[in-house]
Amino acid sequence: MPDGGSKPLVVESGFMNKLKSFFITCIFSKILNFLDKAWKLAVSEPKMVFHCLKVGLALSFVSFFYYMRPLYDGVGGNAMWAVMTVVVVFEYTAGATLCKCVNRVMGTFLAGGLGIGVHWVATQSGPKFEPIILGISVFILAFSATFSRFIPSIKARFDYGAAIFILTFCLVTVSGYRVEKLFELAHERLATIAIGTSICILISLLLFPVWAGTELHLLICNNLEKLADSLHGCVEDYFEIEKNDNDEKEDEEMINKKLNGYKCVLNSKATEETMANFARWEPAHGNFNFRHPWKQYIKVGALMRSCAYCIESLNGCVDQEIQAPEVLKEQFREVCMKLSSECSNVLKELAFTMKTMTKSLKVDIMVADMNFAVQDLHNTLKTIPILPSATITKSLGIPLVQVLPIATTISLLTELTSRIEELADALNQLAIMADFSDVEDEDKGMFEEEGHHNIIISNGNSQDNEIIKKTIQN
Amino acid sequence: MPDGGSKPLVVESGFMNKLKSFFITCIFSKILNFLDKAWKLAVSEPKMVFHCLKVGLALSFVSFFYYMRPLYDGVGGNAMWAVMTVVVVFEYTAGATLCKCVNRVMGTFLAGGLGIGVHWVATQSGPKFEPIILGISVFILAFSATFSRFIPSIKARFDYGAAIFILTFCLVTVSGYRVEKLFELAHERLATIAIGTSICILISLLLFPVWAGTELHLLICNNLEKLADSLHGCVEDYFEIEKNDNDEKEDEEMINKKLNGYKCVLNSKATEETMANFARWEPAHGNFNFRHPWKQYIKVGALMRSCAYCIESLNGCVDQEIQAPEVLKEQFREVCMKLSSECSNVLKELAFTMKTMTKSLKVDIMVADMNFAVQDLHNTLKTIPILPSATITKSLGIPLVQVLPIATTISLLTELTSRIEELADALNQLAIMADFSDVEDEDKGMFEEEGHHNIIISNGNSQDNEIIKKTIQN
Repeated sequence: MPDGGSKPLVVESGFMNKLKSFFITCIFSKILNFLDKAWKLAVSEPKMVFHCLKVGLALSFVSFFYYMRPLYDGVGGNAMWAVMTVVVVFEYTAGATLCKCVNRVMGTFLAGGLGIGVHWVATQSGPKFEPIILGISVFILAFSATFSRFIPSIKARFDYGAAIFILTFCLVTVSGYRVEKLFELAHERLATIAIGTSICILISLLLFPVWAGTELHLLICNNLEKLADSLHGCVEDYFEIEKNDNDEKEDEEMINKKLNGYKCVLNSKATEETMANFARWEPAHGNFNFRHPWKQYIKVGALMRSCAYCIESLNGCVDQEIQAPEVLKEQFREVCMKLSSECSNVLKELAFTMKTMTKSLKVDIMVADMNFAVQDLHNTLKTIPILPSATITKSLGIPLVQVLPIATTISLLTELTSRIEELADALNQLAIMADFSDVEDEDKGMFEEEGHHNIIISNGNSQDNEIIKKTIQN
Repeated sequence: MPDGGSKPLVVESGFMNKLKSFFITCIFSKILNFLDKAWKLAVSEPKMVFHCLKVGLALSFVSFFYYMRPLYDGVGGNAMWAVMTVVVVFEYTAGATLCKCVNRVMGTFLAGGLGIGVHWVATQSGPKFEPIILGISVFILAFSATFSRFIPSIKARFDYGAAIFILTFCLVTVSGYRVEKLFELAHERLATIAIGTSICILISLLLFPVWAGTELHLLICNNLEKLADSLHGCVEDYFEIEKNDNDEKEDEEMINKKLNGYKCVLNSKATEETMANFARWEPAHGNFNFRHPWKQYIKVGALMRSCAYCIESLNGCVDQEIQAPEVLKEQFREVCMKLSSECSNVLKELAFTMKTMTKSLKVDIMVADMNFAVQDLHNTLKTIPILPSATITKSLGIPLVQVLPIATTISLLTELTSRIEELADALNQLAIMADFSDVEDEDKGMFEEEGHHNIIISNGNSQDNEIIKKTIQN
């Protein structure tokens, strides 16, 4: 038995080896996969890489500062708070960093003052009541600060501040009993936080700053273009417009990406709201003033989503089983294509005015054109009568069931038109509120050229965004 | 001149007083308004109040623990870390708290180990290279940890861990040089974090726990009901169904709330994803096992949103200017109402099976009924022919333009039906994956009664949710 026991052991160790090598390859391929993903992300979003470099820089700087004596000599072991502040406060956008900095300083200051006050009251009331008063005050303030974080208006702007408030209050009230150097502690904490936040603010704002406002502005521009592309592509798909040779060369994937662009718009609510919240903290930069109407961007975003819902339903129509007969489609092809191209022209013009931050002279005319196209479509409709009685033999007509898809397409296009008009109004209002510049006369000449829209259409990629962003910022 | 100067001064002080009182009333009314909002929130969401009480309790407890010596005697001034851990880690749901606790412990452990290693290498390489090695290591690790936070899979699960990793690494490497008691520091930091996290986990999980999983489950149930109500209300609105006396008594606001319920579904993506992420950290509770298929909930949520998009477009139809002539509406009223009530029956049945976590015997039959209703609708359609030629005089028929709204309604309802069917499939799959219990024979009898749906309909309020939640948990 003890001899025979060796064989299963060999088998087992062989099995274990296989298992080991299996796990190693598994882990290895997972790591490779992960690195590949990370690399792709880094290539597609160089701004993120810059952000990471900035964080590394800020931390190395504050560490050196601590390590090389000046910080340590000033505030001693509490210098750690400066390092901690940098880690916690440094965010991707300048607005978010500023928001956290202000929250951290305000929360610390308020809680420090209140903590010292409560501590004074507690010490005055004798050693018996002291722990009770401290305990109750911690409970009450922790309760109310935590609750305030649920209130939307506080949550949006002071969520982090409330957390820091509780933290500092606890530190000050509780440690006050032990450390016996309350003011010194409060002073050191404030000083180190001030050092940490100033390093963050300086590096975040001066070194390739990522402005939440600019990001939001670009997001809206890109989403407008995505809507235009999706809408046009969707209607083209429905009427099976033959692509010309040039288009055929376009990657299938690229076309699909364009068609599905509206899906980004559907899911952009949270991002827009966060960005708008942070943008309000940012100082004036580029063409954006301190009181830029960021709230209007949220309205614009909501109207864009309502357009995207329409496009979603339109897409549903394209995929439906029952399709309109060719005769009927033929009759509406031209007017529908005209309308959809007018719609996407309006959207592209809106995107262009947003990108260049100018008041467009053409949008109103284009909206009117769009409405004319709707009228044309409805006039075409009026030429086709429908008999509601069942007495007429079917051979004479097409059953209504086959008219459904085209009727829905027309109806949704009409609905979409009115939503785009609302969107144009909201964007006009934004242009007035943000005091966009008027188009200069020279440019006006250029804008009236026929080639204008081709220029806009090619603006969809991120390289152009960079160029336009630079023009915005200068 | 110096005498005459007194008059404007009086005027000014009068003006200042007015300004003062104006500001005081302004601030006072703002505070009252804020308190009113907070009170309403507290009344509508008692769970949030419980959460705040729990945070207060946890903080008071850890403060007392520190204050009353045992914690202080053990780890000295670093006991502060325990207080800090509680403030930072205690979240609303048990899953979020667990996720943060695990992240904090893992991040601290990894970074502590790595930090000690790097520190050892640095000290071995002589005093000249030491600061350089430390600085470079801080830079590289801060860079890579910050970058990893941008990768979606890391962001969803280990975002906080990465932040803590950077923090601890900086603390250990940099302070190692000063404090000279590196292992002690690392040990104390781990010990205090362990104390803080255990208090959080105990209080969060044992005292009225709010499970992210249960919340997600209830969110899906409520959203299903909201979809059912919105859909039915919208189609009723379109066909201007007379409300009976009982309904008239219902508050106008209530009806509007029901109609607009689908809007909650449109915007629930972010919440669902966050909840599902946290739910994966939770231990088995109630009917939810550790490996409950939370990912499937995200799929279900996406399908529900696609239904909501359809309802959004349907609502657009209701508000359109051009309406179908009464004759035509009359012809479709019955079949459309039948279809919409079949659809909302399916949705309500799905909500019921989710709430009771049972495999429904009726859903398949109901889906079949729904499809029959679609067929009925299409049969009705087929009885109405349409003549595509413009040669027939208009007096004989209704122009197609007037048919648009009803055609769109029908088309969207058809589209919605197929989306609801997909949703039912996804929920069936969920029931299989999560091993929902079969309905017992006794219950089956009850379910087959006619009054069944009335029971379900009344389940929409939060009180019932509580009851059902309790049955889920027991």
